[in-house]
Amino acid sequence: GSAYVLTLDCPERPGLVHAVTGFLLERHADILELKQFDDFRAGRFFLRVHFVLDAAHGDPGAAGLSEEFASVAGDFGGTFEIRDADDRRRVLIMVSKFGHALNDLLFRARTGELAVDVVAVVSNHPDHQGLVEWHGIPFFHVPVTRETKPQAEERLLELVGQYDVELVVLARYMQILSDGLARELTGRAINIHHSFLPSFKGAKPYHQAYERGVKTVGATAHYVSSDLDEGPIISQQVQEVDHAYGPEELVAAGRDTECKALSNAVRWHCEGRVFLHGNRTVILR
Amino acid sequence: GSAYVLTLDCPERPGLVHAVTGFLLERHADILELKQFDDFRAGRFFLRVHFVLDAAHGDPGAAGLSEEFASVAGDFGGTFEIRDADDRRRVLIMVSKFGHALNDLLFRARTGELAVDVVAVVSNHPDHQGLVEWHGIPFFHVPVTRETKPQAEERLLELVGQYDVELVVLARYMQILSDGLARELTGRAINIHHSFLPSFKGAKPYHQAYERGVKTVGATAHYVSSDLDEGPIISQQVQEVDHAYGPEELVAAGRDTECKALSNAVRWHCEGRVFLHGNRTVILR
Amino acid sequence: GSAYVLTLDCPERPGLVHAVTGFLLERHADILELKQFDDFRAGRFFLRVHFVLDAAHGDPGAAGLSEEFASVAGDFGGTFEIRDADDRRRVLIMVSKFGHALNDLLFRARTGELAVDVVAVVSNHPDHQGLVEWHGIPFFHVPVTRETKPQAEERLLELVGQYDVELVVLARYMQILSDGLARELTGRAINIHHSFLPSFKGAKPYHQAYERGVKTVGATAHYVSSDLDEGPIISQQVQEVDHAYGPEELVAAGRDTECKALSNAVRWHCEGRVFLHGNRTVILR
Amino acid sequence: GSAYVLTLDCPERPGLVHAVTGFLLERHADILELKQFDDFRAGRFFLRVHFVLDAAHGDPGAAGLSEEFASVAGDFGGTFEIRDADDRRRVLIMVSKFGHALNDLLFRARTGELAVDVVAVVSNHPDHQGLVEWHGIPFFHVPVTRETKPQAEERLLELVGQYDVELVVLARYMQILSDGLARELTGRAINIHHSFLPSFKGAKPYHQAYERGVKTVGATAHYVSSDLDEGPIISQQVQEVDHAYGPEELVAAGRDTECKALSNAVRWHCEGRVFLHGNRTVILR
Repeated sequence: GSAYVLTLDCPERPGLVHAVTGFLLERHADILELKQFDDFRAGRFFLRVHFVLDAAHGDPGAAGLSEEFASVAGDFGGTFEIRDADDRRRVLIMVSKFGHALNDLLFRARTGELAVDVVAVVSNHPDHQGLVEWHGIPFFHVPVTRETKPQAEERLLELVGQYDVELVVLARYMQILSDGLARELTGRAINIHHSFLPSFKGAKPYHQAYERGVKTVGATAHYVSSDLDEGPIISQQVQEVDHAYGPEELVAAGRDTECKALSNAVRWHCEGRVFLHGNRTVILR
Repeated sequence: GSAYVLTLDCPERPGLVHAVTGFLLERHADILELKQFDDFRAGRFFLRVHFVLDAAHGDPGAAGLSEEFASVAGDFGGTFEIRDADDRRRVLIMVSKFGHALNDLLFRARTGELAVDVVAVVSNHPDHQGLVEWHGIPFFHVPVTRETKPQAEERLLELVGQYDVELVVLARYMQILSDGLARELTGRAINIHHSFLPSFKGAKPYHQAYERGVKTVGATAHYVSSDLDEGPIISQQVQEVDHAYGPEELVAAGRDTECKALSNAVRWHCEGRVFLHGNRTVILR
Repeated sequence: GSAYVLTLDCPERPGLVHAVTGFLLERHADILELKQFDDFRAGRFFLRVHFVLDAAHGDPGAAGLSEEFASVAGDFGGTFEIRDADDRRRVLIMVSKFGHALNDLLFRARTGELAVDVVAVVSNHPDHQGLVEWHGIPFFHVPVTRETKPQAEERLLELVGQYDVELVVLARYMQILSDGLARELTGRAINIHHSFLPSFKGAKPYHQAYERGVKTVGATAHYVSSDLDEGPIISQQVQEVDHAYGPEELVAAGRDTECKALSNAVRWHCEGRVFLHGNRTVILR
Repeated sequence: GSAYVLTLDCPERPGLVHAVTGFLLERHADILELKQFDDFRAGRFFLRVHFVLDAAHGDPGAAGLSEEFASVAGDFGGTFEIRDADDRRRVLIMVSKFGHALNDLLFRARTGELAVDVVAVVSNHPDHQGLVEWHGIPFFHVPVTRETKPQAEERLLELVGQYDVELVVLARYMQILSDGLARELTGRAINIHHSFLPSFKGAKPYHQAYERGVKTVGATAHYVSSDLDEGPIISQQVQEVDHAYGPEELVAAGRDTECKALSNAVRWHCEGRVFLHGNRTVILR
């Protein structure tokens, strides 16, 4: 039998779980995991079901199931998706000079811990070409200056199209995306910001943290939005520090939190666990 | 309308969620939270639903609902319970000389953060009588010596009966319960052990931790079993330490982890979130 | 023999540790703990020594030692203090309606885990009078309205004088101190802010955190300054949360972090471990 | 000027800090960091000083300083070492099939976050040859069977000699070292055990953790000793888990804690911060 993941996001109303499980029961599905969240403040309902179909009872595949479920979900007034559980998201990683998050993602993808296909890496610097190509992944050096930014972003979108990219991951990519590109990638691009948002937005957050004398630093993985550092937060990690940490030591201390927050966010997104909900996220894990 | 919590624990089979949500839909219930876990390794299914009935559609109360649900659950071959969501568990706390966990529980109960009724406190020492009575709770001094242990345990069971106690909490009660009493209280008694089990079972765990030179200490809240320090674990908390901590400093450092692990365990138990599952627990939170 | 704590804060220059240890060696002192921090960015040096004098060699007491050390430290151009290690700071706690941090501090002081003398509690509400008086501590109800604020603050300063208060602890005291009072208490007043500063300054931080959709909340203990929520940070604690936490659940989740951050800050301050260093703190622990 | 690190481990007695700082003062040294620990229970003293010599006043180098300091330390009856602060430890890594800890160490070494020279990698499997050689490091495949174990260990010692190895890191090397080899490498070999020691010694700790139903797993970096999994602990990291984690999920969840605990231990060791102290460690950081 094949395994599928159904995700549903719709206005709340009675009988939603019953309707979905009824649909699955008719098809003799075996539910491996069912998580739901009912945001009664917003009147919004979120559901994720991981289930297996038994070939003996017929298995229409993800496309067939989606078609069949459309009539059920039509009443719900929301959106849903049914994907093959083994279907790996096609991911493009962007990076600048700091390579720790890139290396972390590539290694997790290589060992299968992160079930994604990294289909391309784009960087405004050539530094990590060797590492990327050693992993057998195409590397594109797309330099960015104030003047060439529009062309660079166009080139990125071209690559996104060419490689059928489903998720763009900004793994310490130090260029700010234009509003237009940010909007274009809504819900399809995850950034790692090297602070515990909303503290220390903008540039050089570890230096800001040093100036403020905080006793904890952190990192925040969030969806990219046209409002810089204001996108919906997916994952945050923190690290205790003390007075002896200068800005450089804070930078070093923060690296592990960045890797962890970003890889968590990418994993949850690619497993269909993250739902955009206004400026917030619902994560069914 | 009234709010209820339904908990179900049964062998896994298709259609369980559908059947339960069907039962609720028929009664026009509004589901506030639904959590389930399917242990495919053991073939066991666990469910907790928090729902509200609308008085307009009729509300048979917890007893009435239980009767009605019995016919649905009869097929499942498991056990279930339906309780009023506002129903506070009746808790008896046992304590010896260290009062931090007692004080923590009493204060959380007083402010309503912990929705329980502490109906009595039993101690083999008189030290905490003042604090307990200040909270308006009856205090029973039941000394224990090797000779009087059977009578002391009999007295405890008497109080458990007299006060309709649903949960016994051993908040640093330093006497080992007899096998008989431990069995009698299976699933109804929670202990806090001042180590990160299974490390450092038995007496003086912080001294053991000092000898071993660990860099982290912890506390474990678990159900009492006749096999000492081997009961099903509900909650664990840890605390980083270093070489400068002597045994006394470890004792002090560990106190907060004990309070936190124990109050978490009591809360989850009293909200109907904890299911015994062999020597393990399933916690639907 | 008697134990003392010497703290020193001065411009850095060669030979500071040598000079201090020379002073101690001459007096046959046994050093139990020596911690120092040299902030080379700022050219500032911080030192804390915990030592024991052997009565056989003469013990001039804290006052005598201070006089003797003055000539050594005179050259340093900084400030120092020598206190009896067993000398308990005299603490006044301020509180409003939320009593968890108050209860936590009172219990820790009672058991000796926090080596302070709580000499008085001041509140703008009468709610916690019973608890405070049960601990045998004088309670002062000083209501505050916009009109009576100056008189209320005068009353507070009167009590600070009358009780020889060395540290004022704002344990969820919900009134903003006037600039004048904040300045008056510089370095002598610790506040707990219920957010992870600098995130969510000002009112209702948990509600702000909910709106922003953060995945971690926290609490910050800091010295009071006339610039609200901008005082030097002493301790921060965090707690992971998720989408299911509404504002009320965030409030509840944050309580333990508030208690922990505040009691840490009070302990370190009262042990002479915290040094003000511009808008930052150095903590020698 | 040049920076040096002096480490000293000796019986406690009065005047140790004074003598060391006197030695440094005579040479016009600028102290960047001084940490000491006095274990009064054991009567043992540990010191680490990071200092800079000004060339203008003469700089005899590490060897010269060591010779000069020997006369001071002769009285102390302990051991000391003075190293160039920039001197990178020569590290040999051993690994089997799981490569996450290897990849983590190699990347940290490459970026300079971990200031070591990885001079060789030895594995009983050929799997990671490509990764290692991409980093420009010699890889040695030394298979081990029950029969060939003595020869394999001899080969290892040969490589240790040939490459002037100062530290052997067992980064998930799944062969148990013989007693003889463990003794030979005392204080010069660090292992990562994939459990929170002393819980779950021996094989398959994550499977043991699953059976016991713990709510937290962890990893422990420790010096290798001939008594398996009983060596002095350097660093521990933990990770919260729940009932939904099967053994495989625990394995995955634990990987990050293994990388973090091991890289911390290697860093602190190579910075001269770790002192063996019986079966414990003192870490001056």
